[in-house]
Amino acid sequence: MGRAPTIQWVGGVDGFVELIDQTLLPTDFRVIEIRDVETMRDAIRRLAIRGAPAIGIAAAYGLVIALQPSRDLAPEAFNSAVEVASERLASARPTAVNLFWALDRMNAVRATIESASAVEQLERLLVEALAIHEEDRAMCRALGQHGAALVSDGDRLMTHCNAGALATGGMGTALSVFFTAHDQGKRIEVLCDETRPLLQGARLSTWELMEAGVPCRLICDNMAAHAMKTLGVDAIFVGSDRVAANGDAANKIGTYNLAVVAKAHGVPFYVVAPSSTFDRSATTGDYIPIEERAPEEITCGFGTRTAPEGVATYSPAFDVTPADHLAGIVTEKGVISPVSTTTVVAMLDS
Amino acid sequence: MGRAPTIQWVGGVDGFVELIDQTLLPTDFRVIEIRDVETMRDAIRRLAIRGAPAIGIAAAYGLVIALQPSRDLAPEAFNSAVEVASERLASARPTAVNLFWALDRMNAVRATIESASAVEQLERLLVEALAIHEEDRAMCRALGQHGAALVSDGDRLMTHCNAGALATGGMGTALSVFFTAHDQGKRIEVLCDETRPLLQGARLSTWELMEAGVPCRLICDNMAAHAMKTLGVDAIFVGSDRVAANGDAANKIGTYNLAVVAKAHGVPFYVVAPSSTFDRSATTGDYIPIEERAPEEITCGFGTRTAPEGVATYSPAFDVTPADHLAGIVTEKGVISPVSTTTVVAMLDS
Repeated sequence: MGRAPTIQWVGGVDGFVELIDQTLLPTDFRVIEIRDVETMRDAIRRLAIRGAPAIGIAAAYGLVIALQPSRDLAPEAFNSAVEVASERLASARPTAVNLFWALDRMNAVRATIESASAVEQLERLLVEALAIHEEDRAMCRALGQHGAALVSDGDRLMTHCNAGALATGGMGTALSVFFTAHDQGKRIEVLCDETRPLLQGARLSTWELMEAGVPCRLICDNMAAHAMKTLGVDAIFVGSDRVAANGDAANKIGTYNLAVVAKAHGVPFYVVAPSSTFDRSATTGDYIPIEERAPEEITCGFGTRTAPEGVATYSPAFDVTPADHLAGIVTEKGVISPVSTTTVVAMLDS
Repeated sequence: MGRAPTIQWVGGVDGFVELIDQTLLPTDFRVIEIRDVETMRDAIRRLAIRGAPAIGIAAAYGLVIALQPSRDLAPEAFNSAVEVASERLASARPTAVNLFWALDRMNAVRATIESASAVEQLERLLVEALAIHEEDRAMCRALGQHGAALVSDGDRLMTHCNAGALATGGMGTALSVFFTAHDQGKRIEVLCDETRPLLQGARLSTWELMEAGVPCRLICDNMAAHAMKTLGVDAIFVGSDRVAANGDAANKIGTYNLAVVAKAHGVPFYVVAPSSTFDRSATTGDYIPIEERAPEEITCGFGTRTAPEGVATYSPAFDVTPADHLAGIVTEKGVISPVSTTTVVAMLDS
């Protein structure tokens, strides 16, 4: 990766966070320094940092930054400061599960030493935040290694949406496969679906691949079938927001459409997702609720109205790709293939 | 249709043309009057009027308008004026086949009476232009009738791009099916693909359907598979730019993608195209050349740059849907089904 990481901690316990302001991409690349909790809260809230794993890491670092001014407090006062800071950060994006997960983990660790001095507690919190970040990096590396083993020299690959480094603390999930294959010296080309309506593929995935020197071309989502028929596509890798126990995978709208087209053309279709993405309580994809989005994302997504005033829309945010459309699911523990409840549960229990 | 026609002649031989300025749609509806050849040339050039049949009609009326000031000339001088005007109109869009076809037809008719007075020739030209327009209207009506016979009360239908009244002198090709079924009292809903990159579905098809009171919803192209799986879709009707002798049909990029998804879900897929769209010289779709478009249509299609500077793109303008993906081809003579070289040639020869 030839650029600054999505998010990083700089220095020791008095340090600060640097992160890429993703709201400015792809036209402007700017790394911002974050030295106080309100700036971090604002960065999370306005999507300067986004993606479930990256938000968790930002919250963990944010808690350390929030408590730096409290290092001279007595343990009891420090404990109150932690509580206030945690609530402040948790309210930045009330639906982001990883935000709470990271803050809970930080607090659980600290609770074991809450009679220690503020400085000792602060140091322990920083160690935990760095561990959360490092675990995410290791998870991304493992996904990349397992996925890249499925890629051959000369392959033309495809992806949908952005399952990249920008969403994680490491190299991403689906994009990690491309970065790793490229680092291994395999000559690949990646076709990126622009991914309507919010264009994460056009804005973020092409940008990440170009920064890393991975050859890529941007296409409109509806060009996939023609590309498979005329150019040829060897394999497709996408991320997932939630995988059911039978392997049905929810992901950005358009993923299922692409999987259907891939199946018709005999192109292997892989979901790349860490085991934390699996939801055993959903026995099949039918139990994954699909949120519907506001019409404006389709009708005036880029500051210009491109459809009649008052037009009705149908705008599901996600779709579910059935397990029988998947050649495999790449996890940090290895590749699940064939995909079935038996093989998924075996991986989760391993 | 509850609105002004796409194009119409107003008055007699001293009359003028009214047409909808399509560059302002869907945010602004404005009918412009055209009373001189340069304004008509400009309207064709800047796509105020577009679509092969509509351009032919505009050129025919344009020739009449161009010659109104020459009505007192001697026959020989009038003949020269016709030549000048024809060349002027033909240069408005040098790749639009219907433009030349209409001008050639107008000139061929006039050549049979070129020693007649200028006024007589002018009247004959207006009659021919009105005939070209009326033939197109009749063709659209016939397409609508044959297509609507395939539609049942309560159907949810789909279309891609804009094969509507705005592209023709009548009710359109694919959209004529929806207008006709609606007029017959069938309760239908039409899902319109927005049709990236140029959004003809979002800008034009939804507008036409809303104006006509036909219930419709706008979707992104990549939502088709999810819509078929969850909402259910009964049939799909699209237009075509060129149909090969075996029934392979070229149309706006994304049509083949949609046909593949339709086939996987068992949804019948119909092409609606007049017999003039068939190209016997192309034995299969492999002989239809596919033009590639400029990157900017994808990377800054909404006046905002939505992809990194310098990103490579792959942007075919059309794709080819193989005949074996079609439930039928609706022509003005009837429905070709099943679709094969035998059945296509039989229709063309009938």
